[in-house]
Amino acid sequence: MKLNLLLTGNELMAGDIIDSNSAMIAEQIKHFGWRINKKVAVGDELAMLCEEIDQLCIDADVLIINGGLGPTVDDLTAVALAKVTNADITEHPLALAHLHQWCSSRGFALNASNHKQAMLPKNCEIIANSRGSAVGIQLKHRNCLIMATPGVPSELKPMLANEIIPQLEQLFHSDHIQTIRLGVFGLGESSIQELVNEHLADWPDDIELGFRASMPVLEVKLTTRGAHSDAKLQLWREKVENLMGDHLLGEFPINLPSAAINALKQHNLQICTAESCTGGLIASQLTSIAGASQVFPGAIISYSNAVKANILKVPEALLAQEGAVSEAVVKKMALGALDCTGANIAIAVTGVAGPDGGSDDKPVGTVWIAWGSAENLKTQRFHLPFERNGFQNWVAALSLDLVRRYVLGLPEGPDLLKRYRR
Amino acid sequence: MKLNLLLTGNELMAGDIIDSNSAMIAEQIKHFGWRINKKVAVGDELAMLCEEIDQLCIDADVLIINGGLGPTVDDLTAVALAKVTNADITEHPLALAHLHQWCSSRGFALNASNHKQAMLPKNCEIIANSRGSAVGIQLKHRNCLIMATPGVPSELKPMLANEIIPQLEQLFHSDHIQTIRLGVFGLGESSIQELVNEHLADWPDDIELGFRASMPVLEVKLTTRGAHSDAKLQLWREKVENLMGDHLLGEFPINLPSAAINALKQHNLQICTAESCTGGLIASQLTSIAGASQVFPGAIISYSNAVKANILKVPEALLAQEGAVSEAVVKKMALGALDCTGANIAIAVTGVAGPDGGSDDKPVGTVWIAWGSAENLKTQRFHLPFERNGFQNWVAALSLDLVRRYVLGLPEGPDLLKRYRR
Repeated sequence: MKLNLLLTGNELMAGDIIDSNSAMIAEQIKHFGWRINKKVAVGDELAMLCEEIDQLCIDADVLIINGGLGPTVDDLTAVALAKVTNADITEHPLALAHLHQWCSSRGFALNASNHKQAMLPKNCEIIANSRGSAVGIQLKHRNCLIMATPGVPSELKPMLANEIIPQLEQLFHSDHIQTIRLGVFGLGESSIQELVNEHLADWPDDIELGFRASMPVLEVKLTTRGAHSDAKLQLWREKVENLMGDHLLGEFPINLPSAAINALKQHNLQICTAESCTGGLIASQLTSIAGASQVFPGAIISYSNAVKANILKVPEALLAQEGAVSEAVVKKMALGALDCTGANIAIAVTGVAGPDGGSDDKPVGTVWIAWGSAENLKTQRFHLPFERNGFQNWVAALSLDLVRRYVLGLPEGPDLLKRYRR
Repeated sequence: MKLNLLLTGNELMAGDIIDSNSAMIAEQIKHFGWRINKKVAVGDELAMLCEEIDQLCIDADVLIINGGLGPTVDDLTAVALAKVTNADITEHPLALAHLHQWCSSRGFALNASNHKQAMLPKNCEIIANSRGSAVGIQLKHRNCLIMATPGVPSELKPMLANEIIPQLEQLFHSDHIQTIRLGVFGLGESSIQELVNEHLADWPDDIELGFRASMPVLEVKLTTRGAHSDAKLQLWREKVENLMGDHLLGEFPINLPSAAINALKQHNLQICTAESCTGGLIASQLTSIAGASQVFPGAIISYSNAVKANILKVPEALLAQEGAVSEAVVKKMALGALDCTGANIAIAVTGVAGPDGGSDDKPVGTVWIAWGSAENLKTQRFHLPFERNGFQNWVAALSLDLVRRYVLGLPEGPDLLKRYRR
């Protein structure tokens, strides 16, 4: 089934809104093995709208139009559809009934702008809208089924699920699509492509390999169609998982904090953080995960030296002598946090987030990380050459992965980060 | 200047990612009076890509292509451009130099997949990419300037600002567009529109009023064309600012942490946080702002009752008697944090982020917030009926705005949040 999508709206072209509708449509049809063949967006201009409608119907089975059904003058979809199909615009009784019902349920009378929404191309069918005043419009052109839908996401969503998809299922063959999404940290797209080329040279044509960067985690996707391919998909999933090795976090939805939390739960461990340059980012990422309380008693955000000294008991002499960004201090920070919180694993970070505060021996982007238990505390210096927020995010990502690896007894890696060691 | 946009990527068509790039492009060119004429998105299929490139160049001045410059086999933009312009693919010395430099700066050798990114259409020019491995590609076809850009937003953004827009400015006439962007918290779009209709009924036609929700802050935009209108724009800016009153945070880029930090700096105050349900989010938002160290010594993330008791000195009897989510406990948390950190202003939060842990009298979404100084500590209970992360973000937003208002001596507002008081 070949499906095209036409989006209309000046606000879309002006960048005032980000189009989330086409992703919503793609998401919903994907499970039936369908995808959007081509997507076009134009402003609210009748001539362009008519031309695109006509063009997009050429050897397509379905054209979904989104937007332009509203009550205002710049909503032109109904007029354009009438023009393209050489139909008159007439008052559609069902649409009018819907509008009357919609208005009265909200306690006001039908006004002229609303009434416009009942003026539709002659002989079109309507698509029920349970949420809004604008009904959808359905008709055929060039042997292509056109379905015009409202631009408001909350109206489009139920219309897709309850009206459009069921109809498409009746009209067109649908495939059983399976996707496995694996979360990987520490390997880039190109490195993974290289590994696959090298070690999985016999990659099958009927399994699609895809990547998606959801920084800092990379998503590796395996997709097949057809129920028969279950076993085969699982087989290749295992091959990919083995290839990813300890860079594999798990199946989506997975991220670095949840991967670390899973590892901590497995080993019945509790983690605390002592954060300087990340200012609480690591703790907030951990606590963004439901159930974090099982493994996370708390954290000390020791932004100032005074807090490092008073709460984490970092000796002031040490701070003066080594500086706040030093191996000796990050160790003391970790031990202090373990002591305060009663956790048995710590992450401590101290670094120069910038833009200011760098020096020759400790340039902006320098960070010392300590992780592990009081008895077996690891430390590493990194240089992460990113702007402030990028730096903070990378320090958090790194720290959480180092803890995951520590708890699971994996090598310190990840490869990606060796390059940043100093 | 007629500009078309072509987006490519299976992940785009599959709904795996929401396209924010075209909005970014529209945003940036808008300031010069330009807009996107037509936007097309297709998957990673060479034939379709070639056809669309050729079609979109017909009577257009500029075609920006976004995506398909990556190192993997499904990145086809360079090949498509070569095909459409009947050029050979050759190794581009500047692109290769960039790749070598990019790889070596990250401490690894150029691999075959990366090298693919140096294979470009003969005679094309490259567009520098300061952030990533893929350079942009620039060439002419059908008298239309084609500029191919990377799909990664963080790479596209500086490439637009530093390379593409300056070049377009030289080549094409641009209107002098002025935009003032004001950050508002606590008033919704419709409320502001109502206020404007009521109090600024004589709104001039040549100043465009626009809104953009960048949650939790609302952006209010005033736009004019032509240098002459400077004074007039400033006049109406003041009118809008007065209308927004204490809901006005300031001019973009502004957000709640930076507004709070500005207020604290003005009054030479230092802030600390004691966070339970937000788990460090407030501290991390404060420290995401450069220069936060001037006003933020640190924070205690007291997720467990043990940490509340041991570090913040919340009496265990009180925790047992009142429960962790209570006015008495949130007060003690604030006082404890002031004591630990030496700050003179505190934010303390304790609540039920969910999905579990709610009760009849303290349902999920309940939060107690304390803010202010030891001598003048305010408390308020709210119920924020959002899912876990939404709840955490709203608690952070609310807390930071309450502190801004406290420090500046403004009413407790904001209006928007009165509805959530309990």
